[in-house]
Amino acid sequence: MKLTEISTPAAVIDIAAMQRNIKRMQNRIDAFGVKFRPHVKTSKCADVTNLQIEAGASGITVSTLKEAEQFFAAGIKDILYAVGMVPSKLAQAYALIAKGCDLKLLTDSVASARAIATVGVEKGVTFKVFIEIDTDDHRSGVKAESALLLDVAHALQQPGASIAGVMTHAGSSYDLNTAEALIEMAEQERSLCVRAADRLRAAGFDCPAVSVGSTPTALMAQNLDGVTEVRAGVYVFFDLVMHNVGVCRLEEIALSVVTTVIGHQAEKGWAIVDAGWMAMSRDRGTQKQNRDFGYGQVCTIDGEPLDGVVMNGANQEHGIIANPASPISNIVDRFPVGSQLRILPNHACATGAQFPAYQAVDASGDTTTWTRFYGW
Amino acid sequence: MKLTEISTPAAVIDIAAMQRNIKRMQNRIDAFGVKFRPHVKTSKCADVTNLQIEAGASGITVSTLKEAEQFFAAGIKDILYAVGMVPSKLAQAYALIAKGCDLKLLTDSVASARAIATVGVEKGVTFKVFIEIDTDDHRSGVKAESALLLDVAHALQQPGASIAGVMTHAGSSYDLNTAEALIEMAEQERSLCVRAADRLRAAGFDCPAVSVGSTPTALMAQNLDGVTEVRAGVYVFFDLVMHNVGVCRLEEIALSVVTTVIGHQAEKGWAIVDAGWMAMSRDRGTQKQNRDFGYGQVCTIDGEPLDGVVMNGANQEHGIIANPASPISNIVDRFPVGSQLRILPNHACATGAQFPAYQAVDASGDTTTWTRFYGW
Repeated sequence: MKLTEISTPAAVIDIAAMQRNIKRMQNRIDAFGVKFRPHVKTSKCADVTNLQIEAGASGITVSTLKEAEQFFAAGIKDILYAVGMVPSKLAQAYALIAKGCDLKLLTDSVASARAIATVGVEKGVTFKVFIEIDTDDHRSGVKAESALLLDVAHALQQPGASIAGVMTHAGSSYDLNTAEALIEMAEQERSLCVRAADRLRAAGFDCPAVSVGSTPTALMAQNLDGVTEVRAGVYVFFDLVMHNVGVCRLEEIALSVVTTVIGHQAEKGWAIVDAGWMAMSRDRGTQKQNRDFGYGQVCTIDGEPLDGVVMNGANQEHGIIANPASPISNIVDRFPVGSQLRILPNHACATGAQFPAYQAVDASGDTTTWTRFYGW
Repeated sequence: MKLTEISTPAAVIDIAAMQRNIKRMQNRIDAFGVKFRPHVKTSKCADVTNLQIEAGASGITVSTLKEAEQFFAAGIKDILYAVGMVPSKLAQAYALIAKGCDLKLLTDSVASARAIATVGVEKGVTFKVFIEIDTDDHRSGVKAESALLLDVAHALQQPGASIAGVMTHAGSSYDLNTAEALIEMAEQERSLCVRAADRLRAAGFDCPAVSVGSTPTALMAQNLDGVTEVRAGVYVFFDLVMHNVGVCRLEEIALSVVTTVIGHQAEKGWAIVDAGWMAMSRDRGTQKQNRDFGYGQVCTIDGEPLDGVVMNGANQEHGIIANPASPISNIVDRFPVGSQLRILPNHACATGAQFPAYQAVDASGDTTTWTRFYGW
């Protein structure tokens, strides 16, 4: 089926653009001589992840145990579950390991570390566990210089568990927008995570892996000394938030939503389309950035961005297309009822999650359905 | 399974609270002697909708043709598809009608009206079509006093189509927060929609139905003269946005997300939980209201709101629980790793849509899985 024939709203992947994004990141991390472990929470799609593996990725990162189960079923064994483990999820994690999955867990607390080791002993397995390091003050993790780091390590280096390494994610890199600041954040992420590994080793603990990354820092790091693997997720599609951070151009964004014009408010210069927030997601990530794209940048069906035209408002199944700076004249003729537009999303992870499947479009304009999964 | 045993994050419906919400609205609209047609885009769940029908609802409103298909398959025939029709979706609509669905369409343009009539003639069917009236300047619809109203009616009263009535939705009622303003908006919604019907009838067109509604206006209207049916959606669950509008109390919110504490940043007074924006949705609808609940109001697992405690930040699978006014002391002991919390959502339609199923909890604390659907 051709792109212009698909039912709307639809989440469309430009395969060529995505493949360039995959190659760009893989080549960059390969050049440092470290492993690259993509975060597949962005796509939740085996067709996409297989291309990342084919390009050279070493294992994957997941954000839910359901992702681990789905991708293990699709043939991937080396999986890092990068959200803090809780006792109630250990049975589910163990079930995967018992089937042969090389699943790595994460924690930043003594309580969880102890629970993991206890269940490990009960089940007769040694859980491999990363210690989460907080290198940028934005979310979870223990500080590299904290006493807690050694306490968690001590609780893990017990029968039933082992320290897989240290892991950090400089999520606050999303708040930056200059090369200098991103390079500095990448170095902060690296140096503090390596420092945590050094402290562990100096105290006699194992620490085989040092895992760092976010799309902006992975693309801007100048030095990865001491790092063994890099992680990144949204780079596979990119989006308007990443555009504003400064790590991609509009034409590199590989995910868009195809929508149909369903009506107008001609005197206001609005077109109404059949993609609202249910299709775009409620993500307004560009709202506080240097350029606010509303609910998305409007492009022609061929993907050409229309300067200044954005989805300026959204209800569940209605989007309002407008130019906030100056009403679009002659909008009924310019975007007639039934015509199609393509909208670039603020946040690819959030927009993709609204759809049961992607329509992957190749250079000839033919589409293939790539299913994705959701839920927990 | 008991509520405390379910896998998290989970979307939980308090059945008793929901039944009270259903009864409150149905009784109110019954008292006016008009039909009530709930908008089922909020739940997308047959178990919920069946209870609305049992309580006395006359047909349903849907926001996608997929909803129409799913609810028709579940036994509901009287369905209003309340989003502007486009030519490319007429084959899908016709297929439903051919199976016996009493599907009503909507338009606000001459172009769509003509396309509908043309396809009706081709298929040998008379599409029933509502004309959308813009009574509050917020989105779609033709003005009650416009020439366009009569042009659309003329294009519809042709072989292949018929005018089912006029329909409006005062969505801008969501921006209000006093009884006076809501009563005034309800009257504006009613009077302008009735005025459009009167103009059509005076010009010799049919206009059997006058359909109005939004949750706030449906709950606050003092007069429904000339109206034949009322629509509302989110009232079935309510949410924090509706709380701030002033039409429900916190304890009336029937949808919540159950989450597990996965870690802490003790010195900041944060607990980190396994529900992030993927579970809550990215909806920040209370941000611009008189009380900002972040990503949601935190409650105990029993549903008791914790004053001032909200989900203050969210990443894909991480939520940050905090009191923005004053750091929560002793948070590690108060909300230990593995403990559960319940989060009331900003916007029930958006939060529900993040989950493949609800866990419906009864008075004894037992849960039943109620599936819901998504996508288009």
